Amino acid sequence: MNKEFEQQESNINGEGFLPGLAIDTVIFGFHDNQLKVLLLSYKNSSLYALPGGFIHDNEDVNQAARRVLESRTALSDIYLEQFYVFGDYSRYDPAPLKTIMKARGYEPPHDHWLLKRFVSIGYYALVDFTKAVPAPDEISDSCDWYSLDNLPLLMQDHRQIIDKALETLRSNLDQKLIGFNLMTDEFTMGDLQSLYETILNKKLIRAAFQRKMLGLGILERIAKKWTGGAHKAPYLYKFISNKVPTEN
Amino acid sequence: MNKEFEQQESNINGEGFLPGLAIDTVIFGFHDNQLKVLLLSYKNSSLYALPGGFIHDNEDVNQAARRVLESRTALSDIYLEQFYVFGDYSRYDPAPLKTIMKARGYEPPHDHWLLKRFVSIGYYALVDFTKAVPAPDEISDSCDWYSLDNLPLLMQDHRQIIDKALETLRSNLDQKLIGFNLMTDEFTMGDLQSLYETILNKKLIRAAFQRKMLGLGILERIAKKWTGGAHKAPYLYKFISNKVPTEN
Repeated sequence: MNKEFEQQESNINGEGFLPGLAIDTVIFGFHDNQLKVLLLSYKNSSLYALPGGFIHDNEDVNQAARRVLESRTALSDIYLEQFYVFGDYSRYDPAPLKTIMKARGYEPPHDHWLLKRFVSIGYYALVDFTKAVPAPDEISDSCDWYSLDNLPLLMQDHRQIIDKALETLRSNLDQKLIGFNLMTDEFTMGDLQSLYETILNKKLIRAAFQRKMLGLGILERIAKKWTGGAHKAPYLYKFISNKVPTEN
Repeated sequence: MNKEFEQQESNINGEGFLPGLAIDTVIFGFHDNQLKVLLLSYKNSSLYALPGGFIHDNEDVNQAARRVLESRTALSDIYLEQFYVFGDYSRYDPAPLKTIMKARGYEPPHDHWLLKRFVSIGYYALVDFTKAVPAPDEISDSCDWYSLDNLPLLMQDHRQIIDKALETLRSNLDQKLIGFNLMTDEFTMGDLQSLYETILNKKLIRAAFQRKMLGLGILERIAKKWTGGAHKAPYLYKFISNKVPTEN
């Protein structure tokens, strides 16, 4: 695990980092009709938080997001997408970071760079949580998947950050479906409908869903195999490679 | 016109502003099958640029975006939406701002805050350019609408910022259509198709377009009026108030 937080803590002026700018990542996990989110808990405190961090002054912001996620959760090769900048003045609250530092036995000066106002760039991703097994870094007690309908108490505005990410995930699902890489190579229309129903958290009408999905122009129906059974097997589909949903 | 740039210029350490964080706004203008974008040109220089600025340290980032747009173009009441954070290290280029300051007779010290690395938060909007009449601020020669297919040379990465904004506008058009408030109260399917064709820069098939738009569930067909003419008048539509496009 990395030593990064210790370096940031003793680096009172934030030398080598972009000032006032943070990254928070919302990693959604899907599997078998369940939608979860990845959270860290801090040692010696009751605080839960999104995996987040800071940007080196010679680093691309998008590159920093991948590094931060990997250093805090040990997850790599996850396709992160920017979704919103959280920049309200009212989110300025140095108390939780002060608590974390004090719990580690460090008493920060009042003008420590980590206690100043931060604007946070939010990133999100959607992965299969059975394939993404996270590990906590050295300042965290745990790093685990939590069900979206049963979240623990989160620090600062992290609950609003998750809500905004979920809103984005829902409205962009058609466009991002292939990129998320969540379906097996071949799948039924029912499999796809389950994914949508879980993410949108509502039941969909089968005929309308099928019509819409076929209308996107990204699905190819696979020639039916002889199954040998008496039951009618459902059609199988795969994504047409390199296709994006039609805009109209 | 505001005195803001002068204050920023003489404020060598950027006191009162969030360090390293800028705002750039891409204001698209539509009217009669034309799509334009709003650009400023700087006095005594050949540089064209998007209207942009900085964030006060006690101000919400979204509020700063509205203030920046109004102070630089005199346009108010425009609904701005965040679309992307431009944070690559490679965009760090102090030369254009140095040129602008020198053209104003000011020789900045090399560590002037405006010459440091900036991460820029991009905002976009779509308005009717016949209703939004901009005025240049005191550091600009002009503030005008430019056709997207005939843009002047732009400073820094402003051309890429426009391209990314256009990509976002295109893929979000269904969702944002009502909010942009570009259609008259009653319109034909042909009027709507023209808007889409202009923004997407391609011809669409009439039947497929109509089917898709009706499928969004945001249009209401108005009972036909007797027109008195011999020709078949097209149906008129209006937006169903408070409806958002159905997710599925």
